[in-house]
Amino acid sequence: MGSEHTAKAFDTDLQELTRLVAEMGGIAERMIVESVDALIRRDVALGQRVVTIDTELDALQRRIEERAVLTIARRQPMAVDLREIVGAMRVATDLERIGDLAKNMGKRVAALETDFHPLKLFRGLEHMTDLVQQQVKSVLDAYAAHDLPAAMAVWKGDEEVDAICTSLFRELLTYMMEDPRNISFCIHLMFCAKNIERIGDHATNIAETVFYMIEGQAITDKRPKGDMTTFATTVPNT
Amino acid sequence: MGSEHTAKAFDTDLQELTRLVAEMGGIAERMIVESVDALIRRDVALGQRVVTIDTELDALQRRIEERAVLTIARRQPMAVDLREIVGAMRVATDLERIGDLAKNMGKRVAALETDFHPLKLFRGLEHMTDLVQQQVKSVLDAYAAHDLPAAMAVWKGDEEVDAICTSLFRELLTYMMEDPRNISFCIHLMFCAKNIERIGDHATNIAETVFYMIEGQAITDKRPKGDMTTFATTVPNT
Repeated sequence: MGSEHTAKAFDTDLQELTRLVAEMGGIAERMIVESVDALIRRDVALGQRVVTIDTELDALQRRIEERAVLTIARRQPMAVDLREIVGAMRVATDLERIGDLAKNMGKRVAALETDFHPLKLFRGLEHMTDLVQQQVKSVLDAYAAHDLPAAMAVWKGDEEVDAICTSLFRELLTYMMEDPRNISFCIHLMFCAKNIERIGDHATNIAETVFYMIEGQAITDKRPKGDMTTFATTVPNT
Repeated sequence: MGSEHTAKAFDTDLQELTRLVAEMGGIAERMIVESVDALIRRDVALGQRVVTIDTELDALQRRIEERAVLTIARRQPMAVDLREIVGAMRVATDLERIGDLAKNMGKRVAALETDFHPLKLFRGLEHMTDLVQQQVKSVLDAYAAHDLPAAMAVWKGDEEVDAICTSLFRELLTYMMEDPRNISFCIHLMFCAKNIERIGDHATNIAETVFYMIEGQAITDKRPKGDMTTFATTVPNT
């Protein structure tokens, strides 16, 4: 009876943790979309909203950490149950970082406002964002459903994001070379592209956490890496 | 006798955690210095070494997390003792991120190698790195010594790092405008400067963790923010 009570109390604690992670996930997903929308439409107020909302995400992460630690201390879960708690803490950390990256883009909106900005330059960024947002959504679904194949699909899909980022960098670089008036605008876009690419990296981190929760060990395969942006700013013969 | 035994076992666990965090700190500090050295001297092998060493840091972070969780489950520490454990986990997370940022700089060395690169452009980066490395060192000392005033000095000192980063961005931008041959090189330096600035942000996070460990609550003051780099890429009349 006592251990049954403990098991039930643990389940309640775990459900609350999972609920909080889902809440964070919803906020983070919306921040990604809104920060890029704000950039494209030069909507300073929306950019500012993303910056403000980030404090909510930070507070939720602290709450998850606190709850997780109390659950471990009170219920002393073992093996698989412990991994559930650690998993929730890890996912919360990645979501908090995703929020920071979206916040950083939100801040840039005010800087872009008076700039020269051909809409076609945003297309690559939009495409990357759609893909990354889908990655984040899929991996959070996989986390909630304990769906390892779905998590692994996200893990492998990050290569495409990296490849798009690299080609976007090359494109932006040619615009900068063509006309110095494009430089400051393109730098903003490069930093935003890099932020989105890093949001994608956090989606793969979450996929690795799902693997750890289910398999009980760290993933050993090396993730395919398509990111060449550290090289893409070097154009031959310039 | 039983509770004395538990207290002693807890102290041993905590000492081991603190030792692991110090080990991570040593590696992270060295990665910062070596990645920037590698950039300045275009030492591709040293850059690669930083990239390789990052896996050690990641492994240590996982070990700290694992140990922390087991200590909480086994010893069920309360209040101040629990904060010590949570503090170790938080500091480990920040050190892991610092390692990622240094690794990112290490990767860039290979991209810079064949580029045009006047040494004077590195001066601002070197200056920033010296400052940030000192911040990281000071805050890790403050963490080890539970020295709140020292931690708060780091917290306040980040403003200077941000200001240097902003002025470096402006300087690099003028070089890019002057001559398109400087563009790709300056972009690399901007990303490196941003990485170093973010390493500084993690030093302030650690300072906040020291505050939390000692005071038992989150810091409520808003940190002074000198970072204007999101605006510094916008040059009027271009």
